Amino acid sequence: MSLIETPYLLFLGDAPDQLAAKVAQGIKDWRPEYAIGQYRLEGCKADMGLPDMNLATAKAAGCKTLVIGVANRGGIISPAWKKLLVAALEEGFDLASGLHNLLRDEADLVAVAAACGRQLHDVRVPSVDYPIANGVKRTGKRMLAVGTDCSVGKMYTALCMEKEMRARGLKASFRATGQTGILITGDGVPLDAVIADFMAGSVEWLTPDNDADHWDLIEGQGSLFHVSYSGVTMALVHGGQPDALVLCHEPTRPHMRGLPGYKLPSLKALNDLALEVAKVANPACKVVGISINTQHMAEAEARAYLAQVEAEMGLPATDPFRFGAGVLVNALEAI
Amino acid sequence: MSLIETPYLLFLGDAPDQLAAKVAQGIKDWRPEYAIGQYRLEGCKADMGLPDMNLATAKAAGCKTLVIGVANRGGIISPAWKKLLVAALEEGFDLASGLHNLLRDEADLVAVAAACGRQLHDVRVPSVDYPIANGVKRTGKRMLAVGTDCSVGKMYTALCMEKEMRARGLKASFRATGQTGILITGDGVPLDAVIADFMAGSVEWLTPDNDADHWDLIEGQGSLFHVSYSGVTMALVHGGQPDALVLCHEPTRPHMRGLPGYKLPSLKALNDLALEVAKVANPACKVVGISINTQHMAEAEARAYLAQVEAEMGLPATDPFRFGAGVLVNALEAI
Repeated sequence: MSLIETPYLLFLGDAPDQLAAKVAQGIKDWRPEYAIGQYRLEGCKADMGLPDMNLATAKAAGCKTLVIGVANRGGIISPAWKKLLVAALEEGFDLASGLHNLLRDEADLVAVAAACGRQLHDVRVPSVDYPIANGVKRTGKRMLAVGTDCSVGKMYTALCMEKEMRARGLKASFRATGQTGILITGDGVPLDAVIADFMAGSVEWLTPDNDADHWDLIEGQGSLFHVSYSGVTMALVHGGQPDALVLCHEPTRPHMRGLPGYKLPSLKALNDLALEVAKVANPACKVVGISINTQHMAEAEARAYLAQVEAEMGLPATDPFRFGAGVLVNALEAI
Repeated sequence: MSLIETPYLLFLGDAPDQLAAKVAQGIKDWRPEYAIGQYRLEGCKADMGLPDMNLATAKAAGCKTLVIGVANRGGIISPAWKKLLVAALEEGFDLASGLHNLLRDEADLVAVAAACGRQLHDVRVPSVDYPIANGVKRTGKRMLAVGTDCSVGKMYTALCMEKEMRARGLKASFRATGQTGILITGDGVPLDAVIADFMAGSVEWLTPDNDADHWDLIEGQGSLFHVSYSGVTMALVHGGQPDALVLCHEPTRPHMRGLPGYKLPSLKALNDLALEVAKVANPACKVVGISINTQHMAEAEARAYLAQVEAEMGLPATDPFRFGAGVLVNALEAI
């Protein structure tokens, strides 16, 4: 991903809500120096708080690449986006995307990019022939973030912990398993695009032998309780061989994301199932803490909720993005 | 798969043991009329009990297609097989394979097939753009076979149950999720080759709305306890929305297949984990019976073991291939 030229113009498209633009949000939060401006189509419900730019303004501001910062269900390149994507190539921008629907599979984009000498970067596409998982114990330590649902803050949790650990002088590596993480860090496994038989093996590949005191902080995907994606989560738990699990939850969600008929599990249910499954690959695995995404709660409400969760679960709880990841890193250091 | 011309010459290659040739075994057991002969290389440890044929003999016997009936770890087309595969094409046979390593990706096979006007059938390759699972409840009933390990008899269990149900005049469809099942029935989803995000959706696609009294008998894959493939199994459980689970086990296995450091779980552990996970997608799901693969046990030993399992688990237990699937079908009829 180091081949993607920075800085970026973040394309938010016609995002139906803020959550749909989490790719853009992640780049803006973790690599703000790359996030110069945003481009929104009519009806866009997401806002990164960045200057709204048209192509000419963004060009003048130095942007090199238009990054598709929005995802819709199924990962499709919307016909509504095409005019702008073509214009961006013509204006001299490269395009970068983590969608299932590849830029390189769109004949018009390929043709215009070729004519204009621009690059199409599909970070979704696995670039490695991953092995089948062998289950052999690896050196070094690993933390995996697991969630009650999709999009509850697993990536942010791992990134916050990496930042805190590096500030303390500890050895830690965020390991990206999704397109946003890959766009942020320039490396990783696009796990939901890996062929089924090689999922766990790709996670083993991503988190190889390391120093005994080094922690891989593995980005979670999906949820063991989300029927659309639970298989991906399972492969992360068994391929990652985590020594430590951090439970992630968003308390205001009315139902599982995209599944109106499905309620979120309790933190206790997640704790028990994730730990039982993780112990198959690493009998020493422990749940070390809880990460709550409190973005939809006032501060007093958030602090009260965290205190309640700590009391109920007997584990340290924080919103690492809002209140810091200190207690989670303390728990890792105690292992 | 109806395009694959029959009958077959089953290629056993240099199979290190009988289990490695389970594709050939499945075809021989369930479509014996297609299984005319076998071709074995030096050192082959598998034997289907079919006449050993060379290409000329097989041609004279009417064989139309050479089916690769052996799988090695990783699903590679071994260099040791190439001479024979090329010769088969030259002698007028089509080739059919369910390996990850596609026939169509081998330049020499493609060239010879084109020159000789022969077909290369890769049943491994998904032929459909599967949807993302939506978790919506479907009409009709579904049974899923889940195992303590890989290769313990999940496909045979479902096929035996289909045979018994059809003999009773019940509505039942075996739903293939692996290459052997697809080669046997001519339809299905090659689940371990599906892209991660679409695994559960492909299982929903495979088992659509049906008559209220119709049973889909879904072939299982992997095991929730097998760290290499557990993600595939998880997608089957959540995509299949089973009303009934049948637990499958092979009692003489010293460790998980391909994972020397991993012991098999108990039937009780499988019962509890599979049911807990299945209830996320279908709260009414029940474990209805147990299928034991007793092929490595004498008959008296097998019957004693089944009685012991029935007593311990409080569920009907049989080896459906050896002693019939009657008790399992009785259990489905009772739902």
